[in-house]
Amino acid sequence: MNYQSLREQVCQINKDIVKAGLVVLTFGNASGADRQAGVMAIKPSGVDYDALTPNDIVVLSLADGKVLEGNKRYSSDTPTHLHLYQHFSNIGSIVHTHSVQATAWAQAQREIPCFGTTHADHCHGPVPVTRPLTAAEIKTDYELNTGKVIVERFTKRKLNPDHVPGVLVAGHAPFVWGPTPAKALENAIAFEAIAEMATLTLAIHPAIKPISQVLLDKHFLRKHGPQAYYGQP
Amino acid sequence: MNYQSLREQVCQINKDIVKAGLVVLTFGNASGADRQAGVMAIKPSGVDYDALTPNDIVVLSLADGKVLEGNKRYSSDTPTHLHLYQHFSNIGSIVHTHSVQATAWAQAQREIPCFGTTHADHCHGPVPVTRPLTAAEIKTDYELNTGKVIVERFTKRKLNPDHVPGVLVAGHAPFVWGPTPAKALENAIAFEAIAEMATLTLAIHPAIKPISQVLLDKHFLRKHGPQAYYGQP
Amino acid sequence: MNYQSLREQVCQINKDIVKAGLVVLTFGNASGADRQAGVMAIKPSGVDYDALTPNDIVVLSLADGKVLEGNKRYSSDTPTHLHLYQHFSNIGSIVHTHSVQATAWAQAQREIPCFGTTHADHCHGPVPVTRPLTAAEIKTDYELNTGKVIVERFTKRKLNPDHVPGVLVAGHAPFVWGPTPAKALENAIAFEAIAEMATLTLAIHPAIKPISQVLLDKHFLRKHGPQAYYGQP
Amino acid sequence: MNYQSLREQVCQINKDIVKAGLVVLTFGNASGADRQAGVMAIKPSGVDYDALTPNDIVVLSLADGKVLEGNKRYSSDTPTHLHLYQHFSNIGSIVHTHSVQATAWAQAQREIPCFGTTHADHCHGPVPVTRPLTAAEIKTDYELNTGKVIVERFTKRKLNPDHVPGVLVAGHAPFVWGPTPAKALENAIAFEAIAEMATLTLAIHPAIKPISQVLLDKHFLRKHGPQAYYGQP
Repeated sequence: MNYQSLREQVCQINKDIVKAGLVVLTFGNASGADRQAGVMAIKPSGVDYDALTPNDIVVLSLADGKVLEGNKRYSSDTPTHLHLYQHFSNIGSIVHTHSVQATAWAQAQREIPCFGTTHADHCHGPVPVTRPLTAAEIKTDYELNTGKVIVERFTKRKLNPDHVPGVLVAGHAPFVWGPTPAKALENAIAFEAIAEMATLTLAIHPAIKPISQVLLDKHFLRKHGPQAYYGQP
Repeated sequence: MNYQSLREQVCQINKDIVKAGLVVLTFGNASGADRQAGVMAIKPSGVDYDALTPNDIVVLSLADGKVLEGNKRYSSDTPTHLHLYQHFSNIGSIVHTHSVQATAWAQAQREIPCFGTTHADHCHGPVPVTRPLTAAEIKTDYELNTGKVIVERFTKRKLNPDHVPGVLVAGHAPFVWGPTPAKALENAIAFEAIAEMATLTLAIHPAIKPISQVLLDKHFLRKHGPQAYYGQP
Repeated sequence: MNYQSLREQVCQINKDIVKAGLVVLTFGNASGADRQAGVMAIKPSGVDYDALTPNDIVVLSLADGKVLEGNKRYSSDTPTHLHLYQHFSNIGSIVHTHSVQATAWAQAQREIPCFGTTHADHCHGPVPVTRPLTAAEIKTDYELNTGKVIVERFTKRKLNPDHVPGVLVAGHAPFVWGPTPAKALENAIAFEAIAEMATLTLAIHPAIKPISQVLLDKHFLRKHGPQAYYGQP
Repeated sequence: MNYQSLREQVCQINKDIVKAGLVVLTFGNASGADRQAGVMAIKPSGVDYDALTPNDIVVLSLADGKVLEGNKRYSSDTPTHLHLYQHFSNIGSIVHTHSVQATAWAQAQREIPCFGTTHADHCHGPVPVTRPLTAAEIKTDYELNTGKVIVERFTKRKLNPDHVPGVLVAGHAPFVWGPTPAKALENAIAFEAIAEMATLTLAIHPAIKPISQVLLDKHFLRKHGPQAYYGQP
């Protein structure tokens, strides 16, 4: 088998999202892409995280979704992942979970306002929420259409997926990404914390406004881009 | 002793509901049925989960509730379990806990609306809540009558217990079931997560509506029945 | 030293309330009484739970509060404990913590309504809350007066401390008791769960009414008194 | 290298805030000061807590912020810490985290009212919240200006930082301190518990008033100052 390193990374991040407390039962799947090789790799459907090995990971072509390696049936959410890799050209890993706090916002069908710097450090603006899928979009090619409403939201709002590294699918749950599996995992953990803090913030002060654009820019750019001065050089 | 395998399974699931964080103190009991043998097995009353062994499990006849094996007094909720096995002919295991989030909905006497796909994956419609028992129903044969108001709710609403695998008893707590102990446990964990997500969803957006019937059908049928395509073939 | 067994029990329950997650920092103290010997024993003030040994426990006379054994300064809440032992003649152990959920109700200065059977199994009616202490009661003999407002609440409402095994001190935190350390610990754990469930219940349905007196009686008496049929004979 | 003992203490408290559950991802940094030596020591920026060793800790001059020891880039929040040490002359350690419950209050831009004795034991009055920084204050010397709005709040309200050992920075998170690392850690844990209890208290009784000044004084002075009688002599 080829793509051993990619399969190992994807196996590991699927175990890491469980360790991070983001997974309820088997609700969750993480994938990774090798842009140079033109492939993505993803967890098989409904397999226990404990039993998961790199050999269980399924490898597909980024161009057409054809399975290149793996004997297991891939995660039912694979068409969503594939569509995101095809349209968000810099992302290298996607984490989908039903983590409780972020899922509550997805179910409430509300974008998460940026109430503080924890949010601003990870996401340059509100966490967006998709529109609900139409009956037709649900009945046929449901998982592909889930990817399409995500991309539609980013296109319509002119959002940059490198600066807004995740989305809430209405009535469903979050999809979070990053340039690498480590960054996608970090963002998924951050989105869960952001969601919990936002719910509590509203409970304490229902009319609170988001932080200023200046503070949002400051914190996001303190950690991202050429002016970043957070972390070790 | 006979029914060794059933006693072992029932002992194990009683320990598993504790490990899953569903049990407050000793509030919880799980049972299993062997339909071919015409028996059910259940935890004894008020025994510590740590000390529980398969030999402590009590075996009763499904036909008339007569104790067939076991020296301990059976769980005080046994008549509820027995009544459910007698009227819901496909269920093979029942989990009763006072898990905090689902019990809050039982105490609020509200059915849990289907706000998202986590719910839709496990329960084909709202999680129902019984009516409160009358004074007469409480005073005599309380536990049997608890089973009766559950069955009454399913009959009146034409609910299928194979598709709606649990219920909230008003002012009390959830009873959750499945075809096997493993599935009953999975459903009990799912109901607790569903309950927590629903409470948070309402806190974020009190007027939010349930997801569409089309999305509910899609997710439930993606995992259940002849069209299912989730998990490994 | 005498009272070795009492000191060991009291040392153990102080460690157990930490293990049960009821203690924030060092906020918590548990005591036990030996009615026949006419003594009570309590945790010393501000000592780490990890380092606590039976030799650190302070033993006092139930009659007059005179220290009989122990080199450490007793818990500052000792006069409260002593007053409760003197006026509630059947209680054998008291647990005082600042456990988060029950303390929130004490701070809200609201009694906890009986919304369900988890509550009814442990407490025969609402969990009462004291009136706030007056300025004079706070300035002099504060801890003794805390005991007095607790007893006042029970006397005025004609509450039986054997059936209502705890109280919320307004603006402070819960005191919970039982005939033995094991029962006091169980009640303290139950009160914390009851408090959390009640907060969630109100969030889901703010106008929900308590369960009926018939159901309250049924569950309490199922576990307590001559008609009890819960647990092993 | 000098300051070995200070570096060890600061390394340890940075690990302790993680163990105490106060840290989300790498959001958190703790510092300590040696007043006699005229130095402070702080965590480096963006380094994993697990991998942190005393040698990674950066030592700076309290007088002018010049780095005296350490090869790593110091925490980006260092100018905030330095300003606080320069203006609050008795504090010996500062803990900054994005702990969920206290951060929610910072995001809600509400001071935490003193609803109970857990709060009164640690903080002599409400936990204050700063004003939001202006655009100019954010754009230039952001971290220094964060320190300045904290000091401004204490000056304007005539608050004593020895009696009010922490603050919420609006739209950001808490900074908590104490005379020693152990006390700063204790206060940070206490503030998180206070914040959670206050949120729950408001959920149960939105119109509840703070406790009386007499009770606040009693509890604070029971533990602090010449009249203290809590703990061992």
